[in-house]
Amino acid sequence: MEIFNTVKDMQDKANRLREQGKRIAFVPTMGYFHEGHLDLMREGRKRGDYLVISIFVNPTQFGPAEDLDKYPRDFERDRTLAEEVGVDAIFFPDNEGMYPPRYQTYVDVEGVTKNLCGAARQGHFRGVATVCTKLFNIVKPHVTVFGKKDFQQLVTIRTMIRDLNMDIDVIGMPTTREHDGLAMSSRNVYLSEEERESALSLSRSLFLAKKMFEAGETDAGKVLAEVTRYIESYPHTRIDYAKISCVDTIEEAQHVGVDTFIALAVKVGKTRLIDNHVFGEVLDIPYPEGR
Amino acid sequence: MEIFNTVKDMQDKANRLREQGKRIAFVPTMGYFHEGHLDLMREGRKRGDYLVISIFVNPTQFGPAEDLDKYPRDFERDRTLAEEVGVDAIFFPDNEGMYPPRYQTYVDVEGVTKNLCGAARQGHFRGVATVCTKLFNIVKPHVTVFGKKDFQQLVTIRTMIRDLNMDIDVIGMPTTREHDGLAMSSRNVYLSEEERESALSLSRSLFLAKKMFEAGETDAGKVLAEVTRYIESYPHTRIDYAKISCVDTIEEAQHVGVDTFIALAVKVGKTRLIDNHVFGEVLDIPYPEGR
Repeated sequence: MEIFNTVKDMQDKANRLREQGKRIAFVPTMGYFHEGHLDLMREGRKRGDYLVISIFVNPTQFGPAEDLDKYPRDFERDRTLAEEVGVDAIFFPDNEGMYPPRYQTYVDVEGVTKNLCGAARQGHFRGVATVCTKLFNIVKPHVTVFGKKDFQQLVTIRTMIRDLNMDIDVIGMPTTREHDGLAMSSRNVYLSEEERESALSLSRSLFLAKKMFEAGETDAGKVLAEVTRYIESYPHTRIDYAKISCVDTIEEAQHVGVDTFIALAVKVGKTRLIDNHVFGEVLDIPYPEGR
Repeated sequence: MEIFNTVKDMQDKANRLREQGKRIAFVPTMGYFHEGHLDLMREGRKRGDYLVISIFVNPTQFGPAEDLDKYPRDFERDRTLAEEVGVDAIFFPDNEGMYPPRYQTYVDVEGVTKNLCGAARQGHFRGVATVCTKLFNIVKPHVTVFGKKDFQQLVTIRTMIRDLNMDIDVIGMPTTREHDGLAMSSRNVYLSEEERESALSLSRSLFLAKKMFEAGETDAGKVLAEVTRYIESYPHTRIDYAKISCVDTIEEAQHVGVDTFIALAVKVGKTRLIDNHVFGEVLDIPYPEGR
């Protein structure tokens, strides 16, 4: 496995691969890998001749009051895990290499970033779109793999790629979950034991929403009322948002349908967790009866 | 010479060229060619194995009160001229192909677009940066050629390419001028005979500034006072801006030096003309003595 620390080294490698007719698959990450990341890499492994991942905790997608400094990092562990799943190269730049002095260019995806996390985290998706544009120009992938756990991010990237005519296929992968249903996240390490139990309210309330939809409920307000009540029945939870939106536009929907999804952002203690479910898709989690 | 009207056809061609190891040179234009455009193409011809130009009057870089609708167009004439200078392909898309329904992604270069035309034409450079990002992703050039006549545009593109890690060389070409010094522009066709004479105030006042600098004047205010007086001595002129700025940051400079340039935007009748001179560089124009 190769490690590239500079833009130029990574770009030179990408150019050589393309000249050789190799198909480059790419998984951008912020590191501190869990099974969710590894699943994206396994998919990338299948999709390309040469699999690049990046590890970069991108400062421009964190707000001033967010957890940039304490975001968990462990490069040596990540390197070992990446090698085990067959990654060919890690692009691991430093902040100065990515954002040199007088850096001043940003990519804005407007419509689909207005609501949900875009409303809650000002500038977040601008940072995501910008760093992904940079990474795509550096790694030059034919195909890139993103998780559906960050559903709005996936839609933002798809929209940006379409609008800016980036010649890249995007694969969206189902959320990888713990055995009890909790969506995997690098931020789960922040949770105390008690908070870890309350964190289950997210996936379980999604399951509740799914069951209501399957039973014929199409009123988004009614589904959200139930979901809200359910999450709030757990201690240490504070809902940031719970919304049902159109999968293409991320605009609020009044009616639940297969072109909509429910998205949650919930503070559990001090840790902000997100999860979502696209109606009509699989959500295979153990749901405790009677709650 | 090939003509590509769709993004997909152009991108497929670019991919094939790159697989064959061909070097792609690219000159983006809004058409209605004059010798300035042709000089850019001649330079592009030298720089690449395959020379692509684009012709696209980009709506997103025009303000609501600007001349988008009346901007001059003549594709058949342009096609003939391009063929004569050895262009291999014209990318000639329509608005719907470039900006499909629900288009929502824009590229902002912040610092260098604040002043001069960026201040005078709100959103102009956002449109330029966005369409150039799209065109670069469609044509996939190794090298691109821009004119120094639009100096702030050249700096914006250079900054964007650096910041977003686009792997493209940028060549900045000297302004092509009429025999009497007037900078070539597609907008010159708007000028009446009398206005055409007044339009010479731009290049001549730049020459005046150059002479003051060469005589030892370093006070930007004094140079600009002379330049302003000179331009205003012509009828039908109204100065939009006349400024001396740093070539890298496009921030106003107090002192004239080789890291600065003087930029003019002047309305001559209803036609807005721009011109500029980088101090220390060549400005070879006939200057009428005694004026």
